[in-house]
Amino acid sequence: MKKNVETFIGCDCEYEEAQIVIFGAPFDSTTSFRPGTRFASHAIRSESFGIETYSPYQDKDLTDIRVFDAGDLELCFGNTEKALNQIQNMVSEIYQDQKTPCMIGGEHLVTLGAVREAARRYPNLHIVHFDAHTDLREDYLGEPLSHATVIRRCHDILGDGKIYSFGIRSGERCEFEWAKEHTHLTRFDFCGLAEAVRAIGGAPVYFTLDLDILDPSEFPGTGTPEAGGVTFLQLLEAIRAVGTLNIVGMDINELSPIYDPSGRSTALACKTLRELLLAVTH
Amino acid sequence: MKKNVETFIGCDCEYEEAQIVIFGAPFDSTTSFRPGTRFASHAIRSESFGIETYSPYQDKDLTDIRVFDAGDLELCFGNTEKALNQIQNMVSEIYQDQKTPCMIGGEHLVTLGAVREAARRYPNLHIVHFDAHTDLREDYLGEPLSHATVIRRCHDILGDGKIYSFGIRSGERCEFEWAKEHTHLTRFDFCGLAEAVRAIGGAPVYFTLDLDILDPSEFPGTGTPEAGGVTFLQLLEAIRAVGTLNIVGMDINELSPIYDPSGRSTALACKTLRELLLAVTH
Amino acid sequence: MKKNVETFIGCDCEYEEAQIVIFGAPFDSTTSFRPGTRFASHAIRSESFGIETYSPYQDKDLTDIRVFDAGDLELCFGNTEKALNQIQNMVSEIYQDQKTPCMIGGEHLVTLGAVREAARRYPNLHIVHFDAHTDLREDYLGEPLSHATVIRRCHDILGDGKIYSFGIRSGERCEFEWAKEHTHLTRFDFCGLAEAVRAIGGAPVYFTLDLDILDPSEFPGTGTPEAGGVTFLQLLEAIRAVGTLNIVGMDINELSPIYDPSGRSTALACKTLRELLLAVTH
Amino acid sequence: MKKNVETFIGCDCEYEEAQIVIFGAPFDSTTSFRPGTRFASHAIRSESFGIETYSPYQDKDLTDIRVFDAGDLELCFGNTEKALNQIQNMVSEIYQDQKTPCMIGGEHLVTLGAVREAARRYPNLHIVHFDAHTDLREDYLGEPLSHATVIRRCHDILGDGKIYSFGIRSGERCEFEWAKEHTHLTRFDFCGLAEAVRAIGGAPVYFTLDLDILDPSEFPGTGTPEAGGVTFLQLLEAIRAVGTLNIVGMDINELSPIYDPSGRSTALACKTLRELLLAVTH
Amino acid sequence: MKKNVETFIGCDCEYEEAQIVIFGAPFDSTTSFRPGTRFASHAIRSESFGIETYSPYQDKDLTDIRVFDAGDLELCFGNTEKALNQIQNMVSEIYQDQKTPCMIGGEHLVTLGAVREAARRYPNLHIVHFDAHTDLREDYLGEPLSHATVIRRCHDILGDGKIYSFGIRSGERCEFEWAKEHTHLTRFDFCGLAEAVRAIGGAPVYFTLDLDILDPSEFPGTGTPEAGGVTFLQLLEAIRAVGTLNIVGMDINELSPIYDPSGRSTALACKTLRELLLAVTH
Amino acid sequence: MKKNVETFIGCDCEYEEAQIVIFGAPFDSTTSFRPGTRFASHAIRSESFGIETYSPYQDKDLTDIRVFDAGDLELCFGNTEKALNQIQNMVSEIYQDQKTPCMIGGEHLVTLGAVREAARRYPNLHIVHFDAHTDLREDYLGEPLSHATVIRRCHDILGDGKIYSFGIRSGERCEFEWAKEHTHLTRFDFCGLAEAVRAIGGAPVYFTLDLDILDPSEFPGTGTPEAGGVTFLQLLEAIRAVGTLNIVGMDINELSPIYDPSGRSTALACKTLRELLLAVTH
Repeated sequence: MKKNVETFIGCDCEYEEAQIVIFGAPFDSTTSFRPGTRFASHAIRSESFGIETYSPYQDKDLTDIRVFDAGDLELCFGNTEKALNQIQNMVSEIYQDQKTPCMIGGEHLVTLGAVREAARRYPNLHIVHFDAHTDLREDYLGEPLSHATVIRRCHDILGDGKIYSFGIRSGERCEFEWAKEHTHLTRFDFCGLAEAVRAIGGAPVYFTLDLDILDPSEFPGTGTPEAGGVTFLQLLEAIRAVGTLNIVGMDINELSPIYDPSGRSTALACKTLRELLLAVTH
Repeated sequence: MKKNVETFIGCDCEYEEAQIVIFGAPFDSTTSFRPGTRFASHAIRSESFGIETYSPYQDKDLTDIRVFDAGDLELCFGNTEKALNQIQNMVSEIYQDQKTPCMIGGEHLVTLGAVREAARRYPNLHIVHFDAHTDLREDYLGEPLSHATVIRRCHDILGDGKIYSFGIRSGERCEFEWAKEHTHLTRFDFCGLAEAVRAIGGAPVYFTLDLDILDPSEFPGTGTPEAGGVTFLQLLEAIRAVGTLNIVGMDINELSPIYDPSGRSTALACKTLRELLLAVTH
Repeated sequence: MKKNVETFIGCDCEYEEAQIVIFGAPFDSTTSFRPGTRFASHAIRSESFGIETYSPYQDKDLTDIRVFDAGDLELCFGNTEKALNQIQNMVSEIYQDQKTPCMIGGEHLVTLGAVREAARRYPNLHIVHFDAHTDLREDYLGEPLSHATVIRRCHDILGDGKIYSFGIRSGERCEFEWAKEHTHLTRFDFCGLAEAVRAIGGAPVYFTLDLDILDPSEFPGTGTPEAGGVTFLQLLEAIRAVGTLNIVGMDINELSPIYDPSGRSTALACKTLRELLLAVTH
Repeated sequence: MKKNVETFIGCDCEYEEAQIVIFGAPFDSTTSFRPGTRFASHAIRSESFGIETYSPYQDKDLTDIRVFDAGDLELCFGNTEKALNQIQNMVSEIYQDQKTPCMIGGEHLVTLGAVREAARRYPNLHIVHFDAHTDLREDYLGEPLSHATVIRRCHDILGDGKIYSFGIRSGERCEFEWAKEHTHLTRFDFCGLAEAVRAIGGAPVYFTLDLDILDPSEFPGTGTPEAGGVTFLQLLEAIRAVGTLNIVGMDINELSPIYDPSGRSTALACKTLRELLLAVTH
Repeated sequence: MKKNVETFIGCDCEYEEAQIVIFGAPFDSTTSFRPGTRFASHAIRSESFGIETYSPYQDKDLTDIRVFDAGDLELCFGNTEKALNQIQNMVSEIYQDQKTPCMIGGEHLVTLGAVREAARRYPNLHIVHFDAHTDLREDYLGEPLSHATVIRRCHDILGDGKIYSFGIRSGERCEFEWAKEHTHLTRFDFCGLAEAVRAIGGAPVYFTLDLDILDPSEFPGTGTPEAGGVTFLQLLEAIRAVGTLNIVGMDINELSPIYDPSGRSTALACKTLRELLLAVTH
Repeated sequence: MKKNVETFIGCDCEYEEAQIVIFGAPFDSTTSFRPGTRFASHAIRSESFGIETYSPYQDKDLTDIRVFDAGDLELCFGNTEKALNQIQNMVSEIYQDQKTPCMIGGEHLVTLGAVREAARRYPNLHIVHFDAHTDLREDYLGEPLSHATVIRRCHDILGDGKIYSFGIRSGERCEFEWAKEHTHLTRFDFCGLAEAVRAIGGAPVYFTLDLDILDPSEFPGTGTPEAGGVTFLQLLEAIRAVGTLNIVGMDINELSPIYDPSGRSTALACKTLRELLLAVTH
């Protein structure tokens, strides 16, 4: 009798054969407003069986590619630095085996653990960042490690001009002003994405997708819903553009299933993950 | 003192005078993902008193037409064939009295019961099918009668070229390929609906409206929400186009009120039913 | 040790210095369908700390203007006339201190209390009215004071041609017909708003914003959700147009937080209030 | 084809044959804390089909007695006096036809409408009152008609010594003190109920059952849940004791289904109504 | 890197070493009132990590016994007979390997699949049945296979005097009367359980635990909540008594997690399963 | 016009006159299972206006005592040590002003911040601890500061024999064994509380009340519900016994309002806080 193995739909190849390795990072300790993203990876795995492996948008099928689902890390709540180390170690192991990591958050801060390792391995790392929020504070209530500071911390590592943000519609005035000098930040939508893709060229890219870039009407299941976001179809198109880049790591984050009793946020996250996996695989 | 009669708003004429007969088919036994459509017809009837009888879209009023609401069938859960027979018998009785049936599902499989009778009575029956899903599987876990096979079963009866599907955005790759040879299937939206209306001409049409064609942002109360759907206003326009056809039967299905605590899915279904009733009555 | 003062974010100046005074009117006794707007002002105040004081849309910040939050009135449920008097007295006090009232409903009927006082003080008062519903009934179940009659009652005070309604998509046929002769009513959207702004010119304007003008996909937290509404971005643009008028009073109403477990309706209402406050302050 | 008549389970006899007439009074306009009891009668009717007509507690069956369900009154929200008049008229009509009224609230104030008529018809009327709250305020925010004053208003009609309250565990200190002089009030439980039944003897009794007497663990679906209440089994026993009295009218009130997503509060209310109907019928 | 194996907490031994095999039977197609038990086994597995493996009640620990969790059967919704066959086959396989099956429902009808096989293997099989409902109908809406008939169907197999039911508090009058002649049925509670245990002696016993025997205050997450049930502590004691019998198969059923947003019903089911596993292992 | 001051009901005296100071500690970063206690203090304050200031249990009234409500601390999520320091500083300030602190958690770890200061000021400090859980782990996933270790950390400060725990029904086997040697731990209920009160005598006592000691039927709004708990009435009696001790600090914690849509958990917490404040004031 077989053991009860749970994976994201269609991601059941053996580890050795995999191109991409999915893992969950269920951590939300620094979330200041409404926690709950810790439940995302488990929910995405469970609910993925409500979608199909086939994408009519890309005319591709998950059964054609090779993805291994490693389950969730067991992260330590309340000790942020330790959790980031656990994430970095996981990414390091995946890189050693010549595979591409795809992390399911958790709050956005988990990105920092992955970016630390990606930047160590890929010196010219760029970041493509989809989000509703700037996440560029120097600190939050005196604390440098926070969901509200994560892109600023990434900038500490990568330096000026390497981060391309899209969809931003919430932040402090000073964050928007800081961004003008240090990053490429597009307000509200994906204007300029094609240009960014050209500018980045063949450089290694970490792609971080905060799902709250979506309009809360389509994606209510998140801690800090921000009206005025992009649509799923716009996001799909943008993901396909990003998929043409040299993606060396990626994550989707900030799904908080408990705030959406309809379950459509989780379903949308499943579909987005499917489309992302299909888009970056050639 | 009068008895407590409950109807859809404005549908309170005597049976003898009615042009259209509404009835509910509260059945969801084959639903594989999340059940709940059995509660739809009751909820639609109750919540209909939150909308108006007047449509500012069509400048028509339910008080101007004659609809009888027969309440719900008492269907047998767990015995699919028997439930379909009960539905077929109901439709048969309505046809015998020279009226048009309008069924409120239930899961989409209930359509098969009605189509069996409509096809028996109208040899050249066509189907106009609005849906997010192909519903074209040959079987589901070995079972030929399922919400995931209903349009395939209708094709068994009607044959090639009689079924026009719109809005489809989820299915297995092989279903999409099968459709290319046997039905008229439009992905994602209503492109080509005007041409379809012209092609169908005066042939008798059964119109089946799976409400999950709508984007889950507008209609979250359904078992399998699929991002990327049409808007209510697009649906209204499409319904008015369908209303110009020779409609001999119709249904709306797949509302699952329990997944939407805001109640707006039920409210939207009520409005859609109002618009449908007004659109097919001339 | 300081007392626990709760305000809408960024609205913490001293009363004497304030240009605008916010207060809550938690009243929903006449709501016929689903009550709950009584919880709106408290929820808006609490959840406002999930948004920022800075608007990237207007490039303005609440910290630049001077607003005092007076908390909620303690209104008498079940006695409508008394509650309206309490509201009118509050507005009167604010006017005496040369400040502009901004009321948070409550059901839409609370507008009548404010309009009574505004019309007393500003003889040529006009009303700009954003709403999904006509609210023009002569009475509701025989009762002249109701959420369904509030604009008709305002018309009793102001007379013909002073009320401009936008976004209306639900009402009885006779209400739409009445409106043709007595008010300026635009169906479905904001068409003609620019013309209305020009026509109103420098006349004093009371602006009443029933949030159910928004599509329920973006704003499900309301008692009577009406599919087919405007988007948040369309509303923002319309608010900025209204903000160029001579606004002497304003309210937002009909948020019912309990129907939206995602909390995004309250978050949107917070953002709308922020944008409104910024738009009317020059 | 038959019309869609909805009744409480097993209460489908013809009006002329009925001993008892059920009707709903969906009114909650004076509720100060959390509204929602307006949905109770509809929910009780719908959900009653989840229980059986047979009581294993009393070994009686609803099919053995004759009850007519008249549906709901259409009450005017926001105008309390008018709503009470509508209730009184309904009770009057039932009395004229020599039947016993059984009202389903609504907030507790609806009791006043029924008691006014019962007291008019039965000069020596007594009240047996089960509740968590005293409901003995002279007024509430200056208003004499309120859910918080209803028993005090009944006392205005009946005078001292006619009201027996049980289960009371919440109220102002002065209410408890007032009760010592004017009514028979038992704190927390049913102690002394047998003595009360003996004291009342054959006098006509109106029985008002505020379901919040139950512990919120068993009955969470109410506006003002008060920990420390009685159990369902204790309530059943008490109802059977009350059933031996000369009951000339009765009501159950304060179910607010929306606060209990499990539905067990409504199910319990259904069972309580079944047991009450069976207990008072000999 | 290891695969993501999900089990009930502490039930992670290899199949070959196991004494007991857990499996889920996610089926609720015949549920007439409110479906949802299909989600139980998955929820129990996930939420089991919120409890401890150690029982302070029995002073035993799951880490001391050997249980294998085989995951869920993939059952065919809508075809009841086929689903029962799948369950029977699973139980047969477990018996062939000399292990004891422990099934997690699903609706109560799943018990029939297991009992069919247990009775085939153990000719003198007895059933101990904890439940709120009689489940003794001859048929339900004409259908012999239903959650409402399951114990009657078991009686068809076992004959008179082999079934001991406890806690029953809901059913039709005729079911209670039928039970008097054919089974041992105890109303409301566990009175007589010790005597039953003695009477059964060493005979093989299938133990079926419908969790709705519990009071809905402690266990709201079930389709048909029946007030007046037993407490968790009473159930624990009864389970320990049953655990002294010769248990050859067992199940727990009728958890419907979606009706309990507090999650305590699932948590209680987890604890009950832990206690059951510990009680039957000596 | 007055500012909008929010307090727990009846706790509105000036700081200088207060005997007791309430403050909130909205922190849940180390919660491993389900977060949400951060919302407790705000919810308790808001919902307290649904209860009365008068206790019929103790025949005392909050209006007779002097309590100041200082609002909530702004704690840093994700940095546990810093948050504990903030709490300790607050308690220190309250002690300097000769007042008694009463903290509203937050997860149980917040107790450690208060106990650190209480133990510094009162060398012979004892703890009375009501809880479902042992909270005695040496560490949790390697982390010494966690909700699961809080009482163990308190023992680090106070040493053997100073901690009296009641109601414990969940923990690892080794925790129960450790407790036998180092603390006074009572399983399941309050047996021995009277003896403990006598043994403690006049020593200074910090009282920490984890509300999950209550049965989840009465108190579902908590992160880790444990069946088999005490009743509210038992808790009240125990609180009154504790109130006779020399209480130098106290807290209630682990209310997580979001898991209880009925709101009765918050209402019960409000009542418990009222009873606690009345019980410790003589």
